[in-house]
Amino acid sequence: MTQNTQGYHVAVVGATGAVGQKMIETLEDRNFPISTISLLASKRSAGKKVLFNGEEVEIKEALPEAFEGVDIALFSAGGSISKKLAPEAVKRGAVVVDNTSAYRMDAEVPLVVPEVNKEDIKKHKGIIANPNCSTIQMVAALEPVREAFGLKRVIVSTYQAVSGAGTVAARELKDQSQAFLNGEELKPEILPVKGDEKHYPIAFNALPQIDVFQENGYTFEEMKMINETKKILHLDKLPVAATCVRLPFFTSHAESVYLEVEKDGASVAKLKELFEAAPGVVLEDDPENQSYPTPLSAEGKRDVFVGRIRRDLDQENGFHLWVVSDNLLKGAAWNSVQIAETIIENNWLK
Amino acid sequence: MTQNTQGYHVAVVGATGAVGQKMIETLEDRNFPISTISLLASKRSAGKKVLFNGEEVEIKEALPEAFEGVDIALFSAGGSISKKLAPEAVKRGAVVVDNTSAYRMDAEVPLVVPEVNKEDIKKHKGIIANPNCSTIQMVAALEPVREAFGLKRVIVSTYQAVSGAGTVAARELKDQSQAFLNGEELKPEILPVKGDEKHYPIAFNALPQIDVFQENGYTFEEMKMINETKKILHLDKLPVAATCVRLPFFTSHAESVYLEVEKDGASVAKLKELFEAAPGVVLEDDPENQSYPTPLSAEGKRDVFVGRIRRDLDQENGFHLWVVSDNLLKGAAWNSVQIAETIIENNWLK
Repeated sequence: MTQNTQGYHVAVVGATGAVGQKMIETLEDRNFPISTISLLASKRSAGKKVLFNGEEVEIKEALPEAFEGVDIALFSAGGSISKKLAPEAVKRGAVVVDNTSAYRMDAEVPLVVPEVNKEDIKKHKGIIANPNCSTIQMVAALEPVREAFGLKRVIVSTYQAVSGAGTVAARELKDQSQAFLNGEELKPEILPVKGDEKHYPIAFNALPQIDVFQENGYTFEEMKMINETKKILHLDKLPVAATCVRLPFFTSHAESVYLEVEKDGASVAKLKELFEAAPGVVLEDDPENQSYPTPLSAEGKRDVFVGRIRRDLDQENGFHLWVVSDNLLKGAAWNSVQIAETIIENNWLK
Repeated sequence: MTQNTQGYHVAVVGATGAVGQKMIETLEDRNFPISTISLLASKRSAGKKVLFNGEEVEIKEALPEAFEGVDIALFSAGGSISKKLAPEAVKRGAVVVDNTSAYRMDAEVPLVVPEVNKEDIKKHKGIIANPNCSTIQMVAALEPVREAFGLKRVIVSTYQAVSGAGTVAARELKDQSQAFLNGEELKPEILPVKGDEKHYPIAFNALPQIDVFQENGYTFEEMKMINETKKILHLDKLPVAATCVRLPFFTSHAESVYLEVEKDGASVAKLKELFEAAPGVVLEDDPENQSYPTPLSAEGKRDVFVGRIRRDLDQENGFHLWVVSDNLLKGAAWNSVQIAETIIENNWLK
């Protein structure tokens, strides 16, 4: 690829989706150095017009040829599209930042949260994977603790927003909530998993299923958290357990995280110091003043918020945290753009 | 007290509250042997009329004299009322089943979930405490596991309904949800804790605070779960950790429970057998058919539902469960009435 002093030719694949739209907004907000932007989507969306930095941009169909001349392609159009088109983009000289599960566990593909393992980007062969939303915010909080005290085990229960299942799921929550308040019958069609056999109401409910079930009884979302966390932290043997639950709110995931550290000397005060100093992490923890993060308070922000830090009452080196972040930003669009920024800053496009 | 072959003189204290109303309904549903019912509440509610078994009953003010002749008094009007009036009821010969936190940790007072420790009722000196809602459903699920394999540790993250904070909280969720859908400003006034300094929106949000904060950084709800679980299971040294979160649904609490058993030989299949055989517990666990309990599906039912049973992927004797129950029924009204039924069946009124 040719480095352009005027900026880069950037493509967004899945430009009309919940994450794609946040990618476009984040590129604008960050004043990302762009010479040309290609907004790509399915044939159905081609021809629509979207504003980018105040100018109308026509959405084009995501075809292999659309990647000619592209420097950086941000993918968020589902795993099968990434499987098909990411190699085509790489073949044409682009570096792909892929926000699907297609390549995350591929040993050849770096899986990156810049605050945690940006050096892994260097080893890329054209594709860098963006981790699952619920993984990103957890590892951002775990990393400063790992660095200072080591990690012995992690158990997480999640509280996840519907927007993680796309704009159709957010629409379903909205419509269903209104129907519920009107005393009408609920007719679930999307959640917990679009296209799966059964659907449950999400309005005023909680669904202990995110993504499809695996043979071992865990959902794919739970296995993503377990496997991706180990890969990103370079701790293949770290015991990680996850229970993932979909809840009736629109944006931001929250996580109840239990962790045990390896070294002695950790305390709530020391953990607070670590989080205060950690990049991309904001400490919001003052029980005396009822201060802690919530999904609504984290919405629209790029940081990972940590609160409710407590020492376990029985396990000397055990601690509990409450971790909240906007699943569409740090959990998806912002982490992808941040990877792209890191690539540029470090000259890692190659 | 005099045993009445025609039934018992039963009083419900807090008859106009969310739990009090469910107590009245449960007494009706169970065809509880009642000769006279006294519905007691604050002075403000006195004079109102309520239907009981099709007949109008006038609500009386809860004064010491109101307990003359009462055999069994079910209290659910807040801790300070119980502190004041339960001894007055006992003095007049009544047995009190108290659904507040006033006496739960009193060494002289049995804390009872009938499926778990009904024998403890025998030791009562007039008052039997009904545990906290989130504790009851968890110990009902833990007990069959403890009995078969012993318990080594428990870590729980809760997903709790607003009705646990009373009818005003349920009203707030309803009104706020509608305001949110209308695009109006949210004005939180009740949750997370009525009368506490700060209030947060609950509509389309998650609040990691239930009840007030203690000095150790845990909330009172979390400490209730920790301490009551040990007392009910007679396992003073069992490590129990809890993170309690209020969520935007009306009824039923859900819990993500991690447990480690002491003995070898436990498996998902064996745990399923245990839950299938356990009184008051319903196994609802078939990942292949996306079958698991949810708050909406448990609403209005007296059982504790268990699903999502998985072996921990690293800890040989570790298991994960998803436990759901109607917080107003098994979590409060039904457990109280069940204690009263157990007292009668076993002639433990003394």
